[in-house]
Amino acid sequence: MSLLVTGTIGIDTIETPARKVERVMGGSCAYFAAAASLHCPVRVVAAVGGDWPAEHKAMLQRFKNVDLTGLEVRPKSTTFAWGGRYFDNMNERETLFTHLGVLEEKPPIVPNSYADSRYIFLANTHPAVQMELLSHFPKRALAVADTMDLWINIAKPDLMQLLKQVDGVVLNNSEAEQLTGVRNPITACRKILEMGPRFAVNKKGEHGAILVHRDGVATMPAFPAELHQVVDPTGAGDSFAGGLMGYLAGANRTDFEGLQTGLAWGTVTASFTIESFGLEGLAKLTRADVEKRMKQFQRHARVG
Amino acid sequence: MSLLVTGTIGIDTIETPARKVERVMGGSCAYFAAAASLHCPVRVVAAVGGDWPAEHKAMLQRFKNVDLTGLEVRPKSTTFAWGGRYFDNMNERETLFTHLGVLEEKPPIVPNSYADSRYIFLANTHPAVQMELLSHFPKRALAVADTMDLWINIAKPDLMQLLKQVDGVVLNNSEAEQLTGVRNPITACRKILEMGPRFAVNKKGEHGAILVHRDGVATMPAFPAELHQVVDPTGAGDSFAGGLMGYLAGANRTDFEGLQTGLAWGTVTASFTIESFGLEGLAKLTRADVEKRMKQFQRHARVG
Repeated sequence: MSLLVTGTIGIDTIETPARKVERVMGGSCAYFAAAASLHCPVRVVAAVGGDWPAEHKAMLQRFKNVDLTGLEVRPKSTTFAWGGRYFDNMNERETLFTHLGVLEEKPPIVPNSYADSRYIFLANTHPAVQMELLSHFPKRALAVADTMDLWINIAKPDLMQLLKQVDGVVLNNSEAEQLTGVRNPITACRKILEMGPRFAVNKKGEHGAILVHRDGVATMPAFPAELHQVVDPTGAGDSFAGGLMGYLAGANRTDFEGLQTGLAWGTVTASFTIESFGLEGLAKLTRADVEKRMKQFQRHARVG
Repeated sequence: MSLLVTGTIGIDTIETPARKVERVMGGSCAYFAAAASLHCPVRVVAAVGGDWPAEHKAMLQRFKNVDLTGLEVRPKSTTFAWGGRYFDNMNERETLFTHLGVLEEKPPIVPNSYADSRYIFLANTHPAVQMELLSHFPKRALAVADTMDLWINIAKPDLMQLLKQVDGVVLNNSEAEQLTGVRNPITACRKILEMGPRFAVNKKGEHGAILVHRDGVATMPAFPAELHQVVDPTGAGDSFAGGLMGYLAGANRTDFEGLQTGLAWGTVTASFTIESFGLEGLAKLTRADVEKRMKQFQRHARVG
């Protein structure tokens, strides 16, 4: 089934304890689409500026399953740019700068050819924009939104409206706590379900993820990555969501057990993202690589 | 096969955000033995003082699989006592007081009838004492030690000696980092393997556990507990070790796959401990309760 993602395409400058890279491909939509494309075709709705590097376009085009019809280039605008620095533990980071560029303008245009999209992922942006974009897809079977601390702080009424319109939400553990005032990740997600969605996925980074659904709870560890394998965690959360939604759309599933299986595909897909800067880790993958690591993950995470 | 544990039996005073309890049964040996006894018979080597409450003895005696021949009562001494307070998140705590009592004296006497013990768990105490106790069990098939930050700080040479003599070590994530200087839990455990043992279990509390073994890596989430289910986390780590070692001794296994299955039994066993203060949560359990929750855990933690 058709999977569509709206979100940011950005230019990232990233410092890790080992290295600094400038102006690599980034953004929630880019990571999501690249990751999901290993599982099914993906339609992109996003905007970039006239400064968008040709090599970034070439990078995205390496993902044969990514449909760029909805990628709008605005020659007089600038591309969203983000700079961040990771601390020694590679699990915490600070933002060094953010240039919103096209994100300060009107939302990207949704092509008519996308109107029949069935699986919708609203990557992180202002919840009012997420709602506007969602309204273009009346035939949707599953709509899932990501969010972040910024919108919980400055646009909570819009976010609460959005939560009534989506089937599921994906967010970090700290954001679930911020939104609900509850630190326990499962109880926090239960409170989010009271706000509207029928499931919430709590992303715990190196500690895995928890799915709280009206029909059950699923818990999953992260793929066990050694120190030398963790090159750049940027985009891991979006790649996780891409693997999850890509599995669901590819299998045409929206049920609890499907989501639980999707968590595993998301985990495995994200494990490749952190092994390189930008999309390099995903670009060189084949479907066989992903399936092989899934088998490895199932051995690592066998229960009893 | 016979499982033996040496460690502390204590009197705990515990404050949680919801409640305060005074002088409940505690100690690493008590939690370990109670938890392991759900899986196999357990021999206890520990000392208490003349002040040890009769109701604590009665509590331990409720666990039919626990052999108390090696429980030494020293009438003129006092029992180890610990007071701690949990913060709002129930995952961090501070120690309010520690009365060492019998722990400052000579180690407990190992009964002759215990000399043929095959599975040995050295719960947390001074590594020199752990080594002395270990020397009583020449027929051991598997020896595993726990440790803590205190001994890493003040008795590292003894700890390094101990690590050469045990098959495995169980420790908290923060302690693995402290011992190795490496924050990544898997890479830290690899470094510990270079110190002697053939496996290390990294306990991450609410985030589960990771086993690093010469023959492989296993990762496991915690049992998904909601806020209202977490009454008192005290003893969770020792109960986890008890479930793990109890499974291994009961099944007479020492291999990687056995340890991996043991992690799941440890996780499930510990999930009952945190639901009550002291040993209450374990005391009312039947083997059927534990098996039922294991099936539940396997549903929660299914991978793909």
